[in-house]
Amino acid sequence: MRTIEWDDGRDCIVMVDQTKLPAEYTTYHAETVPELIESIEQLRIRGASGLGAAGAYGVALAARRNDADDVDAFVDAVAADAEAIATARPTAVNLSREVDSLLGILRNCTSIPEARERTLAAAEELADLDVARNERIGDHGAELLADGDTVMTHCNAGALATVDWGTALGVVYSAQEAGKRVDVIANETRPLNQGSRITTVELEERGVETTLIPDNASGLCLQRGMVDTVIVGADRVVLDGGEEFGAQGVVFNKIGTYKHAVIADRHDVPFVVAAPHATIDTERSADEVEIEQRDGDELREIYGTRNAPPETAVYNPAFDATPTELVDYLVTETGVYEPPLDRAAFETEADRVTP
Amino acid sequence: MRTIEWDDGRDCIVMVDQTKLPAEYTTYHAETVPELIESIEQLRIRGASGLGAAGAYGVALAARRNDADDVDAFVDAVAADAEAIATARPTAVNLSREVDSLLGILRNCTSIPEARERTLAAAEELADLDVARNERIGDHGAELLADGDTVMTHCNAGALATVDWGTALGVVYSAQEAGKRVDVIANETRPLNQGSRITTVELEERGVETTLIPDNASGLCLQRGMVDTVIVGADRVVLDGGEEFGAQGVVFNKIGTYKHAVIADRHDVPFVVAAPHATIDTERSADEVEIEQRDGDELREIYGTRNAPPETAVYNPAFDATPTELVDYLVTETGVYEPPLDRAAFETEADRVTP
Repeated sequence: MRTIEWDDGRDCIVMVDQTKLPAEYTTYHAETVPELIESIEQLRIRGASGLGAAGAYGVALAARRNDADDVDAFVDAVAADAEAIATARPTAVNLSREVDSLLGILRNCTSIPEARERTLAAAEELADLDVARNERIGDHGAELLADGDTVMTHCNAGALATVDWGTALGVVYSAQEAGKRVDVIANETRPLNQGSRITTVELEERGVETTLIPDNASGLCLQRGMVDTVIVGADRVVLDGGEEFGAQGVVFNKIGTYKHAVIADRHDVPFVVAAPHATIDTERSADEVEIEQRDGDELREIYGTRNAPPETAVYNPAFDATPTELVDYLVTETGVYEPPLDRAAFETEADRVTP
Repeated sequence: MRTIEWDDGRDCIVMVDQTKLPAEYTTYHAETVPELIESIEQLRIRGASGLGAAGAYGVALAARRNDADDVDAFVDAVAADAEAIATARPTAVNLSREVDSLLGILRNCTSIPEARERTLAAAEELADLDVARNERIGDHGAELLADGDTVMTHCNAGALATVDWGTALGVVYSAQEAGKRVDVIANETRPLNQGSRITTVELEERGVETTLIPDNASGLCLQRGMVDTVIVGADRVVLDGGEEFGAQGVVFNKIGTYKHAVIADRHDVPFVVAAPHATIDTERSADEVEIEQRDGDELREIYGTRNAPPETAVYNPAFDATPTELVDYLVTETGVYEPPLDRAAFETEADRVTP
C-alpha cells in the first residue's frame, strides 16, 4: 500500500503507522479529524509530501464527517477543522499549502455532496501526482546507476517520506524496476535514527539488500571503495549562496549530509541530490534560510534512557548546508542537472493541484 | 580521585564506576580478583591506560588475597589469577602487557611479603607514570591553544580512559591550568556514545564549558567557524601507510575521526592527535592493522530498545584510518611533531615499568 491513502470501505484515511517502526509494520485508520491531527503530531505520517497528502485527505475527511445541513455552516465548520489540521505541525509548508488548495476547491462548491466528492477527488489527484512525480525523479536518477552498484543514503528520502516511491530511494526502486541490482548502505542518521528505523524497513519491504552503518562509518566506507554513488534528498535548494557560498547554490538537507558530500568528493564518488522541482527555491539566498535548532533532549536521552547528563548544553541543528560544488547531479521530475545550476530551468511553476 | 587507584584503608582497588555514567558518578571497590575481572568485562574500567593500571593493580590484589604459605604455590596461584585478569578483554594490549610486567616482578621476589609489597609498589609506580606522562602530553599540547579557544573532540580520550588527566582532554586541562579558558564541543560518538556518556561528565567535573553535538553536526560546526582546534586521541599510529596511504603515516582512532579530520582540513582548522609515545607503532604498516568489527546489535538496539529490524545487516567498524597529511600536530609526552613524521624520533623505547 501507499504511505497514506483513502480506505473506500471504511470511508476514512489509512496510513502506515511510522511510530511503530521498526518493531512493527502496521497501519492506522484515522476515522476522525482529531485522530488525523494526533497522527500528524505523533509522526505516524511524516515527510514533506506525506504531510501534504495528509492535509489534502484531511480536508476531504472533515467534509465527510461534518453533518451541518446548510452550505455556509458546513464550509465554516470544515474550514475550522482544516485550520486545526494545517497547524498540527507549524513548520511543514506542504501541509498548510495543500490544506489551503483543498479549501479553495471546497469554497467553489455549491452543495455539500459536491464538496464531499470534489475534495476527495482532489486529494486523490494530489496523491497520484506525488507518486507520478517521484517515479519521474526515480526514472531520471536511475540512468546514473549501473547494475551491481552500491548506493549510500542518509536519513529517509523514501516511499515513507512521500505518498509512495520516494525521491532518493525512488532512484533505487526505478533502477531495480529497470532490471539493475542496486544495494544500499543506510546511515543511521542521529539523532532521530530515520535511517535505522525507517529506511532499513522500507528497503527490506522492497527486497533491496541493505547494510546499516553508524553515521561515523561513512568516511571509512567511502575511503574503502564500498560505495559507487551517494544519493540524498533535499529539504530546500537555493540558487544564491549568499555571503558564505557566493554564486553557487546550496542544498539544505538532514544534518550530516555535508560531511558525506565532502568525503564523497575526496574519493571521487558521485554525490546526487534527488528532490522535486518544488524544492528548488529560486527566490531566497542561503543567508535567508534559518537552520532549525531542535530540543537537546533528542541527545540527552535515547528512547527514554539517559544518554548524557540532564544539564548538558546541546547544539542540535536539524539541517546542514552543502554547496553545489560538491554535488555532481541534481535530479528532479524534469531531468538531471549538473551544477552550476541554471536559474532559468527552475523558475517555472512546479506541478500543483490548483483550485 | 583518579579513575583507578589503591584504597589503603580497605586494602583493595577502587575505581570510578563508568557503567553508571552519565546517571551517577560513583565508585566501585574491587575487593577480590573475580570482582576486578567482572569490572573489566563490564567496562567499569576502560581505555588503554586505564586497563593497563587495572592489570597491574590486579596482580597486586591477587598477591594480597592469596593465602598460600609456600612461595612456589603462592606464585603459581597468583600467576593463574593474573592470566584470568589478562584475558578478561582479549584485545586490550596494555592489560596483558602490564600484567606480564608485574608477574615478572613477582617472580623475582624471594618471599610472600616481599612479593605483596613490591607488586603494589610497582602498580602505584605504573599509575603515577601514566599520570605524569599524560601531564606532559597535556603541557606540550596546551602550547597549541589560546585563551578563549573552543576545542572539538571525539570519543573519550580523557581522564576516564587513563589513570588520570587523559590525552586529548589532558591538553584542555593543561591549558586550563595555565590560565587559558578553553571550551569543548563533544561529539556523541555513536554507536557507544562515549562522548555523551563519559566526556561530558568528566569535563563538567573539571569545570570546562561543554556542548554536546550529534556526530552528524561536526561538519556544520567547522563550516560555521565554531571550532578553533580539533583534538583527538589515537589507538595506534603507524609510520608506513602501506599500499593505500604510501609514505605517509596513518592514525587509527575511534570510528568517525577520519570525517572530522577531512572537514577540519577543508576549513583550515588545526587537527591535533594527542597520544603516548607508546602508541606510535614503528614496525607495522597500515596494511597490517586490522580494523575490529563489532557486533551489529550495537546499532540494532540502543540501551535495550529496538533501533533497527533484528535481521538488518550492519557494518560496525570500531576504528577508522586518518592519513597524517590531514594531521597538523602529533603531541606525545616527548613533544609536538608536525607530519611528515620522522621515524627516528619514535624508534626509542617508550617509558615502561620493567621487571
